[in-house]
Amino acid sequence: MTGSPESMDTVKALCFDVFGTVVDWRGSVIRECETLCTARGLEIDCAGFADAWRAGYQPAMTPVREGGRAYVHLDILHREILDELLPRFGLSGLNEDERDHFNRVWHRLDGWPDAREGMRRLRQRFLLAALSNGHVALIVNMARHAGLPWDAPLGAEMARQYKPRAEVYDTTIRMLGLAPRETMMVAAHNDDLRAARARGMRTAFVSRPTEYGPEQVSDLAPDGDWDIVAGDFLDLAGRLGC
Amino acid sequence: MTGSPESMDTVKALCFDVFGTVVDWRGSVIRECETLCTARGLEIDCAGFADAWRAGYQPAMTPVREGGRAYVHLDILHREILDELLPRFGLSGLNEDERDHFNRVWHRLDGWPDAREGMRRLRQRFLLAALSNGHVALIVNMARHAGLPWDAPLGAEMARQYKPRAEVYDTTIRMLGLAPRETMMVAAHNDDLRAARARGMRTAFVSRPTEYGPEQVSDLAPDGDWDIVAGDFLDLAGRLGC
Repeated sequence: MTGSPESMDTVKALCFDVFGTVVDWRGSVIRECETLCTARGLEIDCAGFADAWRAGYQPAMTPVREGGRAYVHLDILHREILDELLPRFGLSGLNEDERDHFNRVWHRLDGWPDAREGMRRLRQRFLLAALSNGHVALIVNMARHAGLPWDAPLGAEMARQYKPRAEVYDTTIRMLGLAPRETMMVAAHNDDLRAARARGMRTAFVSRPTEYGPEQVSDLAPDGDWDIVAGDFLDLAGRLGC
Repeated sequence: MTGSPESMDTVKALCFDVFGTVVDWRGSVIRECETLCTARGLEIDCAGFADAWRAGYQPAMTPVREGGRAYVHLDILHREILDELLPRFGLSGLNEDERDHFNRVWHRLDGWPDAREGMRRLRQRFLLAALSNGHVALIVNMARHAGLPWDAPLGAEMARQYKPRAEVYDTTIRMLGLAPRETMMVAAHNDDLRAARARGMRTAFVSRPTEYGPEQVSDLAPDGDWDIVAGDFLDLAGRLGC
């Protein structure tokens, strides 16, 4: 752990990565999958399904990042991946309404147990912005579902580009009306923090060692000298003097 | 009064005009002007000053709306108007920091007395979005100052254009992930409601008969058959079943 609350006195806004950092996408997708299976009497590997869906996520954004495809929001990308996976997992029987509803599970993800209370404490001192690859509707709907007190749902949609492209961080900082050093990126992913630091932001690593399930191998520890390293959002609040 | 809560069942988000509808810009600017005068021992016509500042507002947006000037946010436009007014009102002595602080009074406007509680009630049933000519930083800072519970601060900055240009309404509706008929514009200004209706939104007129002071002559009554007409936000909440 590096940094101290004192050295962070100029920070005015915390900018959060959302998927994996604030919300437990894997557990949430598994739970909705299991509910669907129970309702229809299906037997499906829901953990495998969640992992496969998420495995399609980074590759789906690549053409946008590389300029070969115009920005489309995550409902579109999630749906393209979903439509490919359904036959593989025995879910071809879902009709259009059911597919659309299932696709929007990403709007209904549950926060990590510490997320809501940690953000409530952090919000007493800082502006809280989403700096997410999720679009506004997704972040706003998720906020209502999970009780997340955002000041502003920002990120990819405003820049019409995906992290870790620089313009996503730059646009968010600009829209908050702040200098980069007045903002701090909060993420469970070292790559995201590296990209944020390159744009001048402060950095806080929050450990989410089961984001990818019990056998997670990535992002188990900070691999940079981030300004803050915290075990969860309550720990982050404590380290930032909230 | 037209419309009923029943006919509004498909509305999912309320999109608010902010200046004049949610917050009392004139009273707030007058109060900060008077505080400044007291601190410096000046005698200034603060009501006249507030009115003059606001009178420059619509003309300042015109070149952007007409395409002759690229979008710049309201801090820029407010400052240009302010710099012209200061000599006229005996305030040329303000230094750069003081001018910058005074210019940001628009980030510190107070809500109308019913705004906070009305929005709290409305938020139990609807998503609440700003659909403002104010930019994100202004709306977010004002929300903290006045206790306004936005789900999303949207509007001009996302469209890089000013109301009543259609793209400001269209961009907000799109970012909320809704159909136009699932959104309702809430405004104290008939022109704003007319532009919103032209984009397919529902409409609610809220009366703010002293926005421009005790001698206000415009927007004293609805001049269209708006879906809802309300006396204030508490009345609006009641009419919408909140």
